[in-house]
Amino acid sequence: MHLKSPWLTRPSPSPPRRSIAGITAPRAVRRASAKKSASKAFSARAASVSSGVSLSSFTAPSKAAAKAQARALRTAVFAADKPDRSGADAKDAGKGQKVMVIGGDGYCGWATALHLSNRGYEVAIVDNMCRRTFDDQLGFNSLTPIKGIHERVRKWEEVSGNKIELFVGDICDYEFLSAAFEAFEPTSAVHFGEQRSAPYSMMDRTRAVFTQTNNVMGSINLMYAIKEYAPECHLIKLGTMGEYGTPNIDIEEGYITIEHNGRTDTLPYPKQGNSFYHLSKCHDSANMLMCTKTWKLRTTDLNQGVVYGVATEETMMDPALINRLDYDAVFGTALNRFCIQAAVGHPMTVYGKGGQTRGFLDIRDTVRCIQIACDNPADPGEMRVYNQFTEQFSVNELAALITEAGKKIGLDPKVITVPNPRTELEEHYYNAKNSKLQDLGLEPHLMSDALLDSLLNIIVEYKDNVDQRLILPGVNWTESASVSKTVAKVAAK
Amino acid sequence: MHLKSPWLTRPSPSPPRRSIAGITAPRAVRRASAKKSASKAFSARAASVSSGVSLSSFTAPSKAAAKAQARALRTAVFAADKPDRSGADAKDAGKGQKVMVIGGDGYCGWATALHLSNRGYEVAIVDNMCRRTFDDQLGFNSLTPIKGIHERVRKWEEVSGNKIELFVGDICDYEFLSAAFEAFEPTSAVHFGEQRSAPYSMMDRTRAVFTQTNNVMGSINLMYAIKEYAPECHLIKLGTMGEYGTPNIDIEEGYITIEHNGRTDTLPYPKQGNSFYHLSKCHDSANMLMCTKTWKLRTTDLNQGVVYGVATEETMMDPALINRLDYDAVFGTALNRFCIQAAVGHPMTVYGKGGQTRGFLDIRDTVRCIQIACDNPADPGEMRVYNQFTEQFSVNELAALITEAGKKIGLDPKVITVPNPRTELEEHYYNAKNSKLQDLGLEPHLMSDALLDSLLNIIVEYKDNVDQRLILPGVNWTESASVSKTVAKVAAK
Repeated sequence: MHLKSPWLTRPSPSPPRRSIAGITAPRAVRRASAKKSASKAFSARAASVSSGVSLSSFTAPSKAAAKAQARALRTAVFAADKPDRSGADAKDAGKGQKVMVIGGDGYCGWATALHLSNRGYEVAIVDNMCRRTFDDQLGFNSLTPIKGIHERVRKWEEVSGNKIELFVGDICDYEFLSAAFEAFEPTSAVHFGEQRSAPYSMMDRTRAVFTQTNNVMGSINLMYAIKEYAPECHLIKLGTMGEYGTPNIDIEEGYITIEHNGRTDTLPYPKQGNSFYHLSKCHDSANMLMCTKTWKLRTTDLNQGVVYGVATEETMMDPALINRLDYDAVFGTALNRFCIQAAVGHPMTVYGKGGQTRGFLDIRDTVRCIQIACDNPADPGEMRVYNQFTEQFSVNELAALITEAGKKIGLDPKVITVPNPRTELEEHYYNAKNSKLQDLGLEPHLMSDALLDSLLNIIVEYKDNVDQRLILPGVNWTESASVSKTVAKVAAK
Repeated sequence: MHLKSPWLTRPSPSPPRRSIAGITAPRAVRRASAKKSASKAFSARAASVSSGVSLSSFTAPSKAAAKAQARALRTAVFAADKPDRSGADAKDAGKGQKVMVIGGDGYCGWATALHLSNRGYEVAIVDNMCRRTFDDQLGFNSLTPIKGIHERVRKWEEVSGNKIELFVGDICDYEFLSAAFEAFEPTSAVHFGEQRSAPYSMMDRTRAVFTQTNNVMGSINLMYAIKEYAPECHLIKLGTMGEYGTPNIDIEEGYITIEHNGRTDTLPYPKQGNSFYHLSKCHDSANMLMCTKTWKLRTTDLNQGVVYGVATEETMMDPALINRLDYDAVFGTALNRFCIQAAVGHPMTVYGKGGQTRGFLDIRDTVRCIQIACDNPADPGEMRVYNQFTEQFSVNELAALITEAGKKIGLDPKVITVPNPRTELEEHYYNAKNSKLQDLGLEPHLMSDALLDSLLNIIVEYKDNVDQRLILPGVNWTESASVSKTVAKVAAK
C-alpha cells in the first residue's frame, strides 16, 4: 500500500500527509533519497502494531513547537552551572528529553533504555538484533532467559506505563536511519549499536572487516543523520577504556597536555587498541573529533570500562524484562564469566599471569553515567570525553574478590591459569583517571558489594542453564585467519 | 573454459595442474575459499594475453627455491648495517626482490612501478582502475594524455625489456587478493591502493563511507593476505603527513616520547586527521600497529607529504608512459594545481589566509623513498614510520615560488584569495621531522629547481588541455551531506 504510493518514488517537496491504519504519518522525509527508508520505518511500526505496542507517539506533533520546547529545556540545562542532581531519580527527571538508544536490545542498551524511560525521558530503541544473531550463529546463549524485543517493550509499558518506541533496522542503512531520525527527532542519541567483543573481531578476517565496517560506518552515518536531521542532537557515543591500551604513563580523560621541545599542546590521548574491535572504537573517536569540529556537533565520547552485574532497578521489575548475561568466551566479560564459573563449580580461568589491569563498573553505574551525559550536553563543536569506570582491578584481584564473596554464600571458588589467547601485556603499569563523571554526580556502586547484591545470587538462580563447553577461550589473537578455526571448533563441540 | 573447470567449484586439496593457452598455471591456491579468486586472476591474465602482454612470468617456479632465494637476499639486506646505496640506480639494484605495487596505475604508483622495474626489482601491479572511474564520474581528466594500463605495461616492456605483471582487481575482494599473492609471492607489498583525495572524501556521505571502507578494509585484507600467504613480505604502506594535523608541538616520525606525571613512555604520535580521507590513513596506521605486533609482520608506514611534479626518468621514456597530472579541485594537489593555473593565465587560488604549511616532495623523491623502504625491511613485529617529505612550505610561499619561476619562462602568474572550502587552521606552528629517509640515503630534489625541470615546462606543453571550469574549489567541508551538492554542481557546469 504505502510502499507503492507514488510520492515515495518521485521527488516531491511537500507531499500530502497520509494515514495508515488510522495513524497519522509523520511529515514526509526531507529528501528523495530518504523515502525508501520511510517505508522501512513504517514496516517496523507495522511490526510494533502486530505485537501490540501502542503507536500513539507516532502521531506527528507540531514540529516547530517540539523543537522550541527541546531548545528551551536544553538552554535550561546549559544555564545551570552546577545542576541539582537530587532529582535525578524523579519520575520526571528527563522531561522534554527524547533519547534514541541505538543498540537498545543489548546488555547496556536495554538497561539504559529502561532506566531513562523510568525517569521521564522519552525513549526510542533502534536495533537490528544482530547481537542475537551472533549467539545463534555461534551456539551461545544468555544465562538469563531474555525475551524478544517486542515482548520486552510491551511488558515495559504494562509494568511502567511508559512507552518505548521501536525502530528495527540497521544504522549502516542510511535510509532507515534517516527515517528513524525524521520520525523520532531525538535530543540525544546514545550509541551502543556496535559489535562489542574483542574476541569476535579477532576470530577471522570476515568478522574483523565486519566489526570495523559495522562500527565505523554506523557511527559515520549517525553523525550525518544528526547533521542533516537533528543538528542540535547530542551524540553520546560509547567508546572503551581499551582504546588507550596499557601505556606506561597515566591515562587521562581523552586528551593529554604534552610539553615537547619547549612547546606545549593539548592533543587527543595516543591510542593503542589491541584488537580490531578496540581499534574500531579508536577510529570512531578520531572520526567524531573531526566531525564535531567541522560540523559543530555536540558530542560526548564515553570510554567505558568492563561492565559487570545483571540487575538494575527496572530490569528486575518483571521476569520478561530481565537483562542478558553472557558467560561464553567471546561475549562474556571477565567478571561476569568468573562469577558464573564460580557458581557452577568450574575453576575461574585466569588468562596468563593475571596481572592485566582494567577499569570496571557496575551496570547500575553505566545507566547513571548515560543519564548524566544526557543531562550535560556538550557545546556545539565540543567533544567531551569521560572515562566511564569506577574501580581498577587486575584479573588476579577479581578472582580473589570472587573467591571471598563466593564463600559467603556457600560456594568454593577455585582458580586455574590458562594460556592467554590474547596478545597483551600481563604485567604493566595502569593508572587511569575517572573523575569527570563523579564530578557531575555519579555515586559509584562498589564491586565488593555488587558481587553479592546483583550478581552471584542471581547467577546461582540460573546456574542450571550454564553450558560449560562455552567457557574456555576459543579465539586466539595470533590464529586469526581468513577461515576461522574457531567457528569450526565451536560447531564441533 | 577454465572458469567452468570442475575443480574451481569443488574443494580439492591437490587439484591437477592445467594449462591455458600454453601457459602453465601456478599451483592451485591453498584454500577452497580462494578458488573463485583464482578464476578472477585468470581472467585478468586472459585480458593481459589479449592485450599482448607476455605471460611467461606466470610459469610456476619452484616455490621452495624462490622462497629460499628471497630469504637469502633478505638476510643479506639485514646483515648490512650501513648498506651501500651507491648502486641504487644500477640495473640490478633490486635483484631478487619481488614488489607488488598496489594502486600501480595511479600517480605515485605508476612512477614507482617503473622506477623499481628499471632497477631490477620484479614488479607486479595490482589495481582496479577506480581512480579513472572517479574522473569519469566527475568529468575530470589528467592534463597529460595517459594511456590505459594494458598499453602502459606493454609499452614499458617494449621500451625497457622488463615485464610488469598485471593483476586487475579490488583488494577489498579477498578472493582476488589472495590469488594475486599466491601467484606473485611478493617480498614487498607497496600499498598505494587507496582513495587519496580529502575533498573527494568530504563530498557526501556515500563517498565518506566509501573512502573509509575502501581504504581501511583494503589494508586489513592486505595484512591478512601477508599473514596467510607471504608472512615474510614487507608491507610498505603509504600514509600521509595529514594524519598528524597541525599540532602546536614538533611533529616526530610516528612515535613520541612523553613524560607525564613523573613517568615516561614512547607512544604513537597523537593523530588529528582533518577529513575522512586523512582519518582513513590514521585508522590504517592504528590497525597496522596492532597487526604488526600481534602477527609479527614486517611493516613500514610512510607518512607522505604533498607530491608534486610529473616527470620521472622512466615515465618520460615514451609518450605512452607519461604519468597523470591532476589539476581539478578534488584530485589536484596544491603545487601541481598552482603551476597549471600559472601556465594558463588563471590566477593561483590561495585558500583563505594561505598560512597553511605542509611538507612537500618531488615525485622523483617518492620513487626513491619507496626503493629505500624496500631495501630496508622492518624486523618481524616492527612497524617503522618515516615522514616522507623533503621541504616545508606555506601556501603563500608556494605561490611566491611559482611566481618567480613562472617569470623565468615568460609567464606572468597572479594570485587570488578564495574562501577556504576546508575547515582548517590558516595560520599555525608547523615543524615536522623528516631525517630518517635521508639517513637511509635519500638525496632530495629541491622545489625551486623542480618547478622548471619537471613541472612548469611540461605543463606549458599540454596547457591546451586545461578545462578551466575544474579549477575552482567545489567541495566545502561543512556542506558534506547525504546527497552531494558538488556532484550536481559539477554535472551542471
